[in-house]
Amino acid sequence: MRIPAFLLISFSLLPLHADEGMWLYTNPPVKQLKQKYGFEPSKEWLDHVQKSSVRFNNGGSGSFVSGDGLVMTNHHVASDCIAKLSTKETDLVAKGFLAHNPGEERKCVDLELNQLVSIEDVTPRVNAAVKSGMEPGAAQKARVAAINAIEKESLDKTGRRSDVVTLYNGGLYHLYRYKRYTDVRLAFAPDQGIAFFGGDPDNFEYPRYDLDVTFLRVYEQDKPAKIEHFFKWSKAGAKEGDLIFVSGHPGKTDRLNTMRHLEFTRDRANPTSLNVLRRREVVLKSWAERSSENARRAQDDLFGLQNSRKAITGMEAGLLDPAVMNRKRDAEQKLRSAVDASADLKSKYGNAWDDVNKAIADYDQFYTELYLLEREQAFNSELYGIARILVRYAEESRKPNADRFREYSESGLESLKLELFSDAPVYADLETVKLADSLSMMAEWMGGNNELVRLVLAGKSPQERAAELVRGSSLKDVAVRKKLFEGGLDAVRASNDPLIKLALQLDAPSRKLRERYERQVDEPLKQAYAKIAQARFAAFGSDVYPDATFTLRLSYGEVKGYEEEGRKIPAMTTLAGAYAHAADHGYKEPFNLPKAWIEKKDSLALNTPFNFVYCGHHRWKLRKPDDQQKRRDCRHHLRRQYLQPGARLHLQR
Amino acid sequence: MRIPAFLLISFSLLPLHADEGMWLYTNPPVKQLKQKYGFEPSKEWLDHVQKSSVRFNNGGSGSFVSGDGLVMTNHHVASDCIAKLSTKETDLVAKGFLAHNPGEERKCVDLELNQLVSIEDVTPRVNAAVKSGMEPGAAQKARVAAINAIEKESLDKTGRRSDVVTLYNGGLYHLYRYKRYTDVRLAFAPDQGIAFFGGDPDNFEYPRYDLDVTFLRVYEQDKPAKIEHFFKWSKAGAKEGDLIFVSGHPGKTDRLNTMRHLEFTRDRANPTSLNVLRRREVVLKSWAERSSENARRAQDDLFGLQNSRKAITGMEAGLLDPAVMNRKRDAEQKLRSAVDASADLKSKYGNAWDDVNKAIADYDQFYTELYLLEREQAFNSELYGIARILVRYAEESRKPNADRFREYSESGLESLKLELFSDAPVYADLETVKLADSLSMMAEWMGGNNELVRLVLAGKSPQERAAELVRGSSLKDVAVRKKLFEGGLDAVRASNDPLIKLALQLDAPSRKLRERYERQVDEPLKQAYAKIAQARFAAFGSDVYPDATFTLRLSYGEVKGYEEEGRKIPAMTTLAGAYAHAADHGYKEPFNLPKAWIEKKDSLALNTPFNFVYCGHHRWKLRKPDDQQKRRDCRHHLRRQYLQPGARLHLQR
Repeated sequence: MRIPAFLLISFSLLPLHADEGMWLYTNPPVKQLKQKYGFEPSKEWLDHVQKSSVRFNNGGSGSFVSGDGLVMTNHHVASDCIAKLSTKETDLVAKGFLAHNPGEERKCVDLELNQLVSIEDVTPRVNAAVKSGMEPGAAQKARVAAINAIEKESLDKTGRRSDVVTLYNGGLYHLYRYKRYTDVRLAFAPDQGIAFFGGDPDNFEYPRYDLDVTFLRVYEQDKPAKIEHFFKWSKAGAKEGDLIFVSGHPGKTDRLNTMRHLEFTRDRANPTSLNVLRRREVVLKSWAERSSENARRAQDDLFGLQNSRKAITGMEAGLLDPAVMNRKRDAEQKLRSAVDASADLKSKYGNAWDDVNKAIADYDQFYTELYLLEREQAFNSELYGIARILVRYAEESRKPNADRFREYSESGLESLKLELFSDAPVYADLETVKLADSLSMMAEWMGGNNELVRLVLAGKSPQERAAELVRGSSLKDVAVRKKLFEGGLDAVRASNDPLIKLALQLDAPSRKLRERYERQVDEPLKQAYAKIAQARFAAFGSDVYPDATFTLRLSYGEVKGYEEEGRKIPAMTTLAGAYAHAADHGYKEPFNLPKAWIEKKDSLALNTPFNFVYCGHHRWKLRKPDDQQKRRDCRHHLRRQYLQPGARLHLQR
Repeated sequence: MRIPAFLLISFSLLPLHADEGMWLYTNPPVKQLKQKYGFEPSKEWLDHVQKSSVRFNNGGSGSFVSGDGLVMTNHHVASDCIAKLSTKETDLVAKGFLAHNPGEERKCVDLELNQLVSIEDVTPRVNAAVKSGMEPGAAQKARVAAINAIEKESLDKTGRRSDVVTLYNGGLYHLYRYKRYTDVRLAFAPDQGIAFFGGDPDNFEYPRYDLDVTFLRVYEQDKPAKIEHFFKWSKAGAKEGDLIFVSGHPGKTDRLNTMRHLEFTRDRANPTSLNVLRRREVVLKSWAERSSENARRAQDDLFGLQNSRKAITGMEAGLLDPAVMNRKRDAEQKLRSAVDASADLKSKYGNAWDDVNKAIADYDQFYTELYLLEREQAFNSELYGIARILVRYAEESRKPNADRFREYSESGLESLKLELFSDAPVYADLETVKLADSLSMMAEWMGGNNELVRLVLAGKSPQERAAELVRGSSLKDVAVRKKLFEGGLDAVRASNDPLIKLALQLDAPSRKLRERYERQVDEPLKQAYAKIAQARFAAFGSDVYPDATFTLRLSYGEVKGYEEEGRKIPAMTTLAGAYAHAADHGYKEPFNLPKAWIEKKDSLALNTPFNFVYCGHHRWKLRKPDDQQKRRDCRHHLRRQYLQPGARLHLQR
């Protein structure tokens, strides 16, 4: 096993497809591996790889790489931590960081890492909660109650973070228990100039020449944690032709989505997201250009926006490609014919596609309001996010655990508090710029005369209102948050904080939208896709892996170059290539290699491998921004980032 | 009269408001000038200023500044010409240009300059063409026929470019005759680094420190033209407290717009434009970042996009400001009350507001299709624009002149041909990027299953289709364009050029949209606003100036500093300020002063005035992106760029 294979690929941002697969550790591709590579993973091997893998709770993956707690990940995954440790005077993102000894390591303010320690099948118990004939809203509530209860029991019994994850569209429910690490410290980060060399133009592209890596260290009781399972350093590294594995947490895929659902994504959801991403990119970029301190404050947001924009642009290009859609249509037709051909299948699953159509049609009716209010897109502000959590938690914590929204259930409380009480800096100027733009967006979309818009703007312009809300709020102060959190609903209702008051005012209309979504859209879709998944098993067998759900998966593939426009692209780039790449672009940003790299060029072994690519045999086709990228599908996949209501948008990751 | 006053203000991009006014030369603010400044402009003075003013036919203003044809304008106005003269090897935009003698001056490939030589009132003749009781479509046709005829007659009689301009919403029609200059050569342009120092962040802002100037020279018979009226150089320049004038061509204002109409602009038109501008900015910026040649090719488009985005963002912020809208609502209420109070006014004008509401409601129904098809926003491509002109001209030229669309009438033919047969470079890669994105936009907006979308995409993805159209078209070749132009409809129909074929296919649905727009929206609005204008005259008198229509206007004001956040901003910046400004921003782009400026600093008199600001007393409030800018209203206005169907979008200007 070689570390570079597990780490230098941007696996946190990309669903992992190599030889086609994001396999569960409970159902690894043993047959395929044996057949093609003559490799048979043992139980011990799987256990070792699983436990050497690390989940970043803010969205991302990494690996243990030493017995004393070192974690290796991508720089862009750790950059949230690095940015929060930076100040105007000491910009660790721009300048990089090196702790010469553990004493110099710097604690990330709100980073939680998880190690998956056990998996338990809880399908029967979850399914038993939902009685047949239940109305969708009731079914959803019953399922959430069962899941909340299972998680709470497990937490109480084991003390582990306990998440029930839905697999195969409800075909399976697994209880994942994680060991939590919340004392995570920064050991080494390169400077941004080399960590993100090539910037947005090179992002998702190959050949690539960046040192996209960071080392963190987990601590327990203020000491480097003792780690049993970790990946050892390989001096030789991966070679062309090697079988490699990627163990990580792909975000979200929806491969069962029907044609109608994909069309909705193509014609409604993606255009909406892209519109938002682009406006935020433009707003932040103009603001960032005004001064270098602005640029520093905005850079983590900006990276996230550009990253998502590039990913979704690619997905949209795929959805607009008739070749892709025709293939999907044929597959759907094939499955539906198989269902129609059997009286049994037809009666059990035949109406699933119509159910999807109906749910999507309903969704279309209130998509904008849901997006702006319940999904908080009208309030692009850290402080508003905090206000909303405080308001929601105050309401939800009065209910029995089983009845709460998933994100406020007791088993997730520790993680929620870590985020809520974070000492991460909040920049009032950046907050105001972002909030003013998103309030303006709400007014543009819903119309300036809309009642909710008027309520939110309170007779001010978006700019004035945003400035007033940010200026007037004391939620920057973590002590204030703690007081409101502990004071419960009475404290929240008595608060004069303008953001708390706004979040309170919006809570009822927002809950109404969520309730409508759950009843009319989410639950009907869940049930319909469960049927479609079962129909697929029944018709074509079950040797498949489930959709990505930001849970641990194992992928594999071969280190391998490819051809592009008649040119052979080798699997490995070298350090020399980075210099040539910079020269090709006149050393202009973002191709300006850092000064130190220019000066020390002579002391480097320029033939050292730098980045590499690996290929699977089945290419995932839903990404094709242009002809060139078509040929790079084996590496360039994308992450579809759908949001559940109540989940906070992490545009960064 | 001082040249700097006329030129260093970005008057081409901004409606001109100083002491509130964009006055007609036929109705100058004599009373106001006399009262406040004791200055009485003579007929000769007005004639001199009028004839010293120059209109840039591609959108912009300038002035004659020598007897041998020198024209001074803003760098960003001339940058279209400069960019078209640039190549990968010789980038005149980036590096600047200086002709050491007239022989070295470089001919702009398609620039037309106009000098307004006479104004004639043709109101009775235009009005006589429209009979009362005519159905809106017929009224529109009759008016266009009369205008086309007047222009043609004038052209035949005088040989001058002859434009009938609509003033006071149809209260007046004036025939403007222009002397055309089509041999325009570049004499001097500074390098972009100083011409646009401060870039997008400083654009529209003050204090400012850029050398936003270019000198061109007009030629006749291959010799520098003899110019009788021109502005002389003032060594002293303007001083604080001076009365100054600005003579230029503000683009378009719509000050009579009703509340309902403004709400439509706020909730529909502006959000649409901003969505488009931002997506294009993001697409072009990512593409430009890939190489310096890409950046060079995209830069003129990018400037235009950013410029418009910043302007419309400001306008939208104004429209979303209840203080602005309440003022507007009060004014409307006051006028309507005055109308309602008089039986005569009520019967003549009382229904105008309802007529606007109805027209806007209709407009809302097909706004998207009109925008994408007839206004060509689905086809962001120079070559498609050429194809569309060729197709339309082939159809229109078969009709009698009176029945043609305005933009294909005989009087405009010479200008049309100058544009159509331009040798300006067309970059296939840039064309493909832009077209692919706009085709994708069409599909996203109308839905991938829409019939017209399918027709346009022809079973390909937007990317493939754009590449195929651009690759397959021979319209890059001016000779091909000429042949099709001269060959008429038969030649166009027989053409195998894929862009010609596409434009032909879309012509019928596109004309249908235009016809609907003219009948249901444009003509009803024209008639309603004519009524509102008349009601305003009747109620409040007629001592007002008309909306801007890209025709020559005279503004005036006082050179004057102002206060911002308790700080005094002097009227003049100096060269020293430019160096300080660069240092404040760490010499980072776009605040990186050019190398030559850094090196030659010691040889400059640093207290030399650089840019200055002048103020009127009535500030135009429809621009307020943030609190700071609020205080700068006296200088920072914006241009509202509404498009008439058939007009080509000039996002650049």
